[in-house]
Amino acid sequence: MRESEFIQWICQQGGLDPALVEVGPGDDCAVLKLGGERLLVTTDQLLDGVHGSLKTHGPEALGRKAAARAVSDIAAMAGLPVAMVATVAAPRGFSRPQAEALYRGLRAAADELSCPLVGGDLAAWAAGPGPLAITVTVLGRCGELAPVLRSGARAGDVVCVTGALGGAWRSGRDLTFRPRLAEARLLAERFGLHALIDISDGLAADLGHLAAASGVGAELDASAVPVHADAAGLADPLAAALSDGEDYELLFALPEGQAERLLASQPLGVPVTRIGRIVAGAGLTLIRDGRRQALPPSGWEHET
Amino acid sequence: MRESEFIQWICQQGGLDPALVEVGPGDDCAVLKLGGERLLVTTDQLLDGVHGSLKTHGPEALGRKAAARAVSDIAAMAGLPVAMVATVAAPRGFSRPQAEALYRGLRAAADELSCPLVGGDLAAWAAGPGPLAITVTVLGRCGELAPVLRSGARAGDVVCVTGALGGAWRSGRDLTFRPRLAEARLLAERFGLHALIDISDGLAADLGHLAAASGVGAELDASAVPVHADAAGLADPLAAALSDGEDYELLFALPEGQAERLLASQPLGVPVTRIGRIVAGAGLTLIRDGRRQALPPSGWEHET
Repeated sequence: MRESEFIQWICQQGGLDPALVEVGPGDDCAVLKLGGERLLVTTDQLLDGVHGSLKTHGPEALGRKAAARAVSDIAAMAGLPVAMVATVAAPRGFSRPQAEALYRGLRAAADELSCPLVGGDLAAWAAGPGPLAITVTVLGRCGELAPVLRSGARAGDVVCVTGALGGAWRSGRDLTFRPRLAEARLLAERFGLHALIDISDGLAADLGHLAAASGVGAELDASAVPVHADAAGLADPLAAALSDGEDYELLFALPEGQAERLLASQPLGVPVTRIGRIVAGAGLTLIRDGRRQALPPSGWEHET
Repeated sequence: MRESEFIQWICQQGGLDPALVEVGPGDDCAVLKLGGERLLVTTDQLLDGVHGSLKTHGPEALGRKAAARAVSDIAAMAGLPVAMVATVAAPRGFSRPQAEALYRGLRAAADELSCPLVGGDLAAWAAGPGPLAITVTVLGRCGELAPVLRSGARAGDVVCVTGALGGAWRSGRDLTFRPRLAEARLLAERFGLHALIDISDGLAADLGHLAAASGVGAELDASAVPVHADAAGLADPLAAALSDGEDYELLFALPEGQAERLLASQPLGVPVTRIGRIVAGAGLTLIRDGRRQALPPSGWEHET
């Protein structure tokens, strides 16, 4: 089964009451209209062997990552985290010290991000091999700002990214990153963002998501993509920056004038880099050494 | 690891801001104070081989059950469901038709219970055997009513239960039950409930949870426990009613006068039965054929 196609199918099912559901499946968070305010909801899972390794990283690091990943989806709407709940499916033989370590990891992220862990569920796999699975659901609010969706990019917008990309899971940066909550909030407040997403799948994939949700295309300037030091020693650092994922940086589209102001003032502490632009049409184009090539969501393919 | 002891340990960790978190871990839902209203949050998981069987029951029935179980925790606070999100960890080889069936099951419960499915996440286990895991997180609200907690029972209260108990997972009733949302709401509105819980672990275990949270003990009249027809043919129907669990009926404590009014009027459609009373002290006592015996949370042990 192709998961992305299935998710698309879900997004087409509809039947949700627009009086309650302002944004349904398909964006970083659902947006609910509740009691006169907008409530953000997002849920994400960390599976042992897929998004981390219990054996290699230990339960505390995985707990922290599970929580931080989910909170990053609140940043991706320029929201403010409110609270989280978590479920843990524990493998057979999971010990009390391991459970406490996992809880410490969740709590560390929750406390650090001002997103208290208010409830959860723990269950153990019965007979047979069931690996560790953690699901974290995060609630957020919008305050005075409207949430910034994936779907608002327009032809002519500038595409920017925070920080640097690539090599995150090779270096373990994926375990220790801090979701860009304050940065997203400041960008949305002061620079009129049209569209925003966090980079979890990879720059190419997530720019693809943003462009598809907005009904536009995008051009990426290969020489402008900020490659992280963690990827610098690799055979193809650009490919790592385009497709590794797990960077949890912010990727956004905004009008030219706003981008110029942002890039000149650099107000975030972390650098913001202009990496491309939104164009009419569909799909991604990579411009590299003056040549244009289609960029698949999986990232740039090394030419052999 | 004993899960119940670990959960107790979590409940003791504290550090939650009472300005936001009115009820933290340990009750059926967390209660958040948000924007002038109370928000309920609960999260629950369904693991293949533990809470159902993908092979035996199929993905649609498990999807429905996962959603209904989680919504039952909203009923257990006398709340009103608002929306749900779900994550699915899919085993290798999980097919598109299976994924669609699972979604149909989630949607069936969501639509039937007026609790729309507004978002989620799907991931596949990588190499190795990872079974199906479904986590459903449900948001609820309280409206004009205060949530009914587990912790409000007082000595002298009457203990009542809706419906009949036992044999649920033997008969498959656990897959088709409807959470008692309207019943809980009516009880809380009109009969001054002191404490409320839904029966998922089993009558003995859940009455134990309610009593422990309230700092009281409880006496149970064995002859009054309503045994479900699904358990009638078993060797020990009372043991099934006490310990099978998965009934998703309401178990509650209320003052004597309110109980008399309730039992005389029977306003729910489903029968309400008086099964015992709250007493000072701690622990559960089963009164059977005039004899008193301690009742462990695991339920009544057949005397051999």
